[in-house]
Amino acid sequence: MSYERTQGRAAHALRPVRITRGFTRHAEGSVLIEFGQTRVLCTASVEEKVPPHKKGSGEGWVTAEYGMLPRATHTRSAREAAKGKQTGRTQEIQRLIGRSLRAVFDLAALGERTLTLDCDVLQADGGTRTAAITGAFVAAQDAVQRLLDQGLLQASPIRDHVAAISVGIVEGTPLLDLEYVEDSACDTDMNVVMTGAGGFVEIQGTAEGAPFTRDEMDQLLALATAGIHELVGLQKAALAQPLPLAE
Amino acid sequence: MSYERTQGRAAHALRPVRITRGFTRHAEGSVLIEFGQTRVLCTASVEEKVPPHKKGSGEGWVTAEYGMLPRATHTRSAREAAKGKQTGRTQEIQRLIGRSLRAVFDLAALGERTLTLDCDVLQADGGTRTAAITGAFVAAQDAVQRLLDQGLLQASPIRDHVAAISVGIVEGTPLLDLEYVEDSACDTDMNVVMTGAGGFVEIQGTAEGAPFTRDEMDQLLALATAGIHELVGLQKAALAQPLPLAE
Amino acid sequence: MSYERTQGRAAHALRPVRITRGFTRHAEGSVLIEFGQTRVLCTASVEEKVPPHKKGSGEGWVTAEYGMLPRATHTRSAREAAKGKQTGRTQEIQRLIGRSLRAVFDLAALGERTLTLDCDVLQADGGTRTAAITGAFVAAQDAVQRLLDQGLLQASPIRDHVAAISVGIVEGTPLLDLEYVEDSACDTDMNVVMTGAGGFVEIQGTAEGAPFTRDEMDQLLALATAGIHELVGLQKAALAQPLPLAE
Amino acid sequence: MSYERTQGRAAHALRPVRITRGFTRHAEGSVLIEFGQTRVLCTASVEEKVPPHKKGSGEGWVTAEYGMLPRATHTRSAREAAKGKQTGRTQEIQRLIGRSLRAVFDLAALGERTLTLDCDVLQADGGTRTAAITGAFVAAQDAVQRLLDQGLLQASPIRDHVAAISVGIVEGTPLLDLEYVEDSACDTDMNVVMTGAGGFVEIQGTAEGAPFTRDEMDQLLALATAGIHELVGLQKAALAQPLPLAE
Amino acid sequence: MSYERTQGRAAHALRPVRITRGFTRHAEGSVLIEFGQTRVLCTASVEEKVPPHKKGSGEGWVTAEYGMLPRATHTRSAREAAKGKQTGRTQEIQRLIGRSLRAVFDLAALGERTLTLDCDVLQADGGTRTAAITGAFVAAQDAVQRLLDQGLLQASPIRDHVAAISVGIVEGTPLLDLEYVEDSACDTDMNVVMTGAGGFVEIQGTAEGAPFTRDEMDQLLALATAGIHELVGLQKAALAQPLPLAE
Amino acid sequence: MSYERTQGRAAHALRPVRITRGFTRHAEGSVLIEFGQTRVLCTASVEEKVPPHKKGSGEGWVTAEYGMLPRATHTRSAREAAKGKQTGRTQEIQRLIGRSLRAVFDLAALGERTLTLDCDVLQADGGTRTAAITGAFVAAQDAVQRLLDQGLLQASPIRDHVAAISVGIVEGTPLLDLEYVEDSACDTDMNVVMTGAGGFVEIQGTAEGAPFTRDEMDQLLALATAGIHELVGLQKAALAQPLPLAE
Repeated sequence: MSYERTQGRAAHALRPVRITRGFTRHAEGSVLIEFGQTRVLCTASVEEKVPPHKKGSGEGWVTAEYGMLPRATHTRSAREAAKGKQTGRTQEIQRLIGRSLRAVFDLAALGERTLTLDCDVLQADGGTRTAAITGAFVAAQDAVQRLLDQGLLQASPIRDHVAAISVGIVEGTPLLDLEYVEDSACDTDMNVVMTGAGGFVEIQGTAEGAPFTRDEMDQLLALATAGIHELVGLQKAALAQPLPLAE
Repeated sequence: MSYERTQGRAAHALRPVRITRGFTRHAEGSVLIEFGQTRVLCTASVEEKVPPHKKGSGEGWVTAEYGMLPRATHTRSAREAAKGKQTGRTQEIQRLIGRSLRAVFDLAALGERTLTLDCDVLQADGGTRTAAITGAFVAAQDAVQRLLDQGLLQASPIRDHVAAISVGIVEGTPLLDLEYVEDSACDTDMNVVMTGAGGFVEIQGTAEGAPFTRDEMDQLLALATAGIHELVGLQKAALAQPLPLAE
Repeated sequence: MSYERTQGRAAHALRPVRITRGFTRHAEGSVLIEFGQTRVLCTASVEEKVPPHKKGSGEGWVTAEYGMLPRATHTRSAREAAKGKQTGRTQEIQRLIGRSLRAVFDLAALGERTLTLDCDVLQADGGTRTAAITGAFVAAQDAVQRLLDQGLLQASPIRDHVAAISVGIVEGTPLLDLEYVEDSACDTDMNVVMTGAGGFVEIQGTAEGAPFTRDEMDQLLALATAGIHELVGLQKAALAQPLPLAE
Repeated sequence: MSYERTQGRAAHALRPVRITRGFTRHAEGSVLIEFGQTRVLCTASVEEKVPPHKKGSGEGWVTAEYGMLPRATHTRSAREAAKGKQTGRTQEIQRLIGRSLRAVFDLAALGERTLTLDCDVLQADGGTRTAAITGAFVAAQDAVQRLLDQGLLQASPIRDHVAAISVGIVEGTPLLDLEYVEDSACDTDMNVVMTGAGGFVEIQGTAEGAPFTRDEMDQLLALATAGIHELVGLQKAALAQPLPLAE
Repeated sequence: MSYERTQGRAAHALRPVRITRGFTRHAEGSVLIEFGQTRVLCTASVEEKVPPHKKGSGEGWVTAEYGMLPRATHTRSAREAAKGKQTGRTQEIQRLIGRSLRAVFDLAALGERTLTLDCDVLQADGGTRTAAITGAFVAAQDAVQRLLDQGLLQASPIRDHVAAISVGIVEGTPLLDLEYVEDSACDTDMNVVMTGAGGFVEIQGTAEGAPFTRDEMDQLLALATAGIHELVGLQKAALAQPLPLAE
Repeated sequence: MSYERTQGRAAHALRPVRITRGFTRHAEGSVLIEFGQTRVLCTASVEEKVPPHKKGSGEGWVTAEYGMLPRATHTRSAREAAKGKQTGRTQEIQRLIGRSLRAVFDLAALGERTLTLDCDVLQADGGTRTAAITGAFVAAQDAVQRLLDQGLLQASPIRDHVAAISVGIVEGTPLLDLEYVEDSACDTDMNVVMTGAGGFVEIQGTAEGAPFTRDEMDQLLALATAGIHELVGLQKAALAQPLPLAE
């Protein structure tokens, strides 16, 4: 007997994914990405400077910051700016986003500039970090395109797509793209980041309850691989549209 | 000779104002308010506890927090959570929002619970604090209505509407509802908070360049009074609609 | 029936104001200002450097910091240095003092140097921020005079006097220069900053209880205007004396 | 052609592992664990209290903190206590250690008490987090044994062994237990945490350079599985010895 | 050949010492103490609560905080509240003041209340910590007297006087009560805290340049002993006067 | 009747002292020093830069940091890095270690580089700061020797030995080198830092209970002088051995 998902979603199905480019007007790239009820605003900012460890290297830098609005969640969580520090969870996620994006960037080709991906969760329903990576890639593309259009870059430093999805085992059933109630109930939770070419960039699997077996892991990776393939298609479709003009 | 506004806006005209209730689904009240290109997400959260200075008083508390996404602005500003502290400007604004809302609340009638208004700027183009106050009032109404619907309150603790607008003098011309380019250029900048009945709750006027005269202040107050009257009408119209169901 | 003030003070009367120049010896300007029992030590420090946003601009900077000794108040308040952060109230006040002083300074004429006004409350009985602004102006004058005497400046960058006073409505009576018990009881509290020429620099009015009317505001502004006129006279009288020699 | 390791170590070989119990005398469990030149002091402290989210639950808590002495590394790194904050890396590691240990603990059987694992790196040469997990398990066993000896527990809340190892691909060769020079040079880096029964608790794989393939991952997991099996044997051997008396 | 002091002061002479009781009006004890140009405001605050480590012990607590106004010194020093932390020097001094006062207090006789001595330097010219201890004792006496007058205490918990002085060797000459220029130039600097009965409470001697000999230390201790004897006499004389009424 | 020490130690006897050079391999100097059960790891790090106040001076700097592992003590103490600040005690101790080492350094002869002594307590049983000073000196010697060996220095900037010991009066008996139980019980506690030539660098004596007399202080200083003479001998013996090769 397998686990019954909300709205009869199939175990291997993504939630409805929407990618809205040009969501805000000031950033070089600005994307609202929705995985069902999870909504993350991803902006890409270009700055003509690099952090100290890249100064004079001829290379650029790609980094990310992550935040969650206090009432993105079921009960209000304390504002990190008011507490005066980011939680360990926040830091872990933003480090993951940064590494994932850098995996498809040629930093030398970017030149000595910094691309910052700000991923702010407006509404959370599970999978915020994987939505953030998937949306940040689209925002990064738009920002790079602007640099190309302005003649500041001759060729794109982006070598491939990158996208991410969560998978997990709930009541014995492997599921793709966990929503919040599934995430809370799952025995095993895994976040997978892959390139468009199908290479793994990050795998983070955690046994929340019982340890997981090699066989379970294989099932989860198969689900994730198919899901990411689908997400890359959605990224491409979104990028194939003309960028909406700011109103 | 008077100042020419963008899109030919009249000196006494508000920018297009849009109030979207139910913008996110977890908060007891959730409103996206737009004053032209300025967009602020205002959520109202109810918690069944009060801060120490209200414990055992039989009274509730209404408070606010304010934030700006790093790329809400033309150039990226540092994330306060990452810096580990809120700026003086942020603290000043969130104190103002809290006082403004408390001015129309009967804290005894609220009972020993806390209403927190989180006002987060998604996109900034001047007037974020006045949009925040105006939108937070609508979110507060929705949160109170839910308490009434649940039978947790018998009567509303809200005694009147409250709304806010900025006014200023740019190149000698008094203007209502300054957008960013006007705000940067103005000699005098004033934020006015008023109740639906027309009483003043807060007036904060600052000479950015030359000091302002009593006569100029009178003109600004007249502009603000009319503008707030219009905003209160828009709040009422928005609240007269049924609350959109969460998808 | 009107409100009875302590010691039979008239509604439009200032408390006894004392301005003691040269109160401490190291600062370029050092003034103890007393509004009745409120005592604030204002020092002006000249440093031959400017903050980053003024570097290379040819302009100087004028800024302020505000503090309150832990036992300046009726009950001991926590030391901000020990808590590791300044309160929102402190930041709001020091930003106000800085803006007020800059309103009468020609920053280009000051040259690339910084004038810092430290306003530390030794004893509080209401009106500490307005006393701070009024005293800081005198300290700034003494610091500028020293730069002129040393030949570091050819002409004063100070264009006018600036002073401040609080006004409020207590039990229906508009009052000038609120002391602590009046401040706690007032319905409306307003701080007004004006130049010697009578221009408004800042107006900050807050309804603590019921909102205030346009008519009440007019009465308060009239009281404040007269009070500040008197304070500017006292500043001039104090500055007309020779600076006492350090013992 | 495969990668040549220092001292001719085989690709599938662990560095010499030493586990010294009773390394310091105050902690309920105190273990120095060495993976070659990497040395981590792991202490287990029992406190008869639980964090707020466990109060009244009847369950205990197991948590971890991680630190690195400033000169554990080739060049001195800043002391986190002096900087006033822990890095994201530190928080990520201590969260991993805590989750790994909790995976083999029955928190209800522990009772309402907290076991804190402090893992402090005295000398770093790669693999500090995996050494920390492996050593912390032994320290936890000693602390639990003391609770059993004192009659505070009737049965052990520890359900299985847990140990961890790093694996990676360097110049195309999959290697077990990376030392610092290998860690710096590797294309893919993976940390694996497993139980004594062979279940996966955590898998964290990161492509440092090129993305990795499914086939590479399978090779890495096989290496890790064998390595952890060996480590569990070493934990058992160490625990089979009598606890050395404090001098 | 001996060192020539400013104003021809003898090597064994204190600077003029002034002790002004009732300097501010809110604190239970408020003393301005001056050692020449060094001026420290010492307030004693009584609070009917104790820190956690004294709760339920039947004993009270005596503690101190120390601060320096930014422009108490020749060049402006950064405000600790603005920097968000107290320097090591500040913490060292306030710990010394607290220990010194506790040395003459019977904490059981004080009852479960806290006496906080706030020592804030208005003007610094060397010896601020010793002036602070000497003045804080007088403020503590006034606060205790008030508790006796109010019937909250039946007998004084203060067992003896305590006072402090600095001594040092400048250009080979042992000197009492170093002022700033001497302090900067001295080879050895020693702060001595003694009771009225002549017992040592604290001795902190530091070789700033060359190490000091046993013979030099004996000379310094003799100077300090005589100086403190004189200070205790001045404390007694100040306390013998009626407490000035607050204006 | 005199106080009976653990293991029949004589009042004037040091605990067994062990000095292990080369304890860790990355630091330029690395010493584990043990005073009985007190164990402190002292590393000396050389960096080719100086703090701002020494830039361009031609002089170097010697500084120290001190820390205690959370479970170095009988009950676990909070990790300073997790709390986000160092305690006053920690700062006081690291300032003392830094001053003590600088007392025997010729900073001009060191050249514009910084020597940082990190003293981390692995196990505490009283006297951690005096062990730290004594061990840090040996680590500093090894670091300087390496600079000499590398030809970066022509002559040693170290002018003399420096070592430290605690003394105290327990139940009327003056004792050398207090262990924890003695430290907790003592009436007077004194830390003495001396050079090899017998000059005093620091004396810090504190009456924990009753004030101490001049005669008691003389006895304590005699004990300390002899103890430090012995420690300097042990430093010399340790340094006379060849530095053990890193395994």
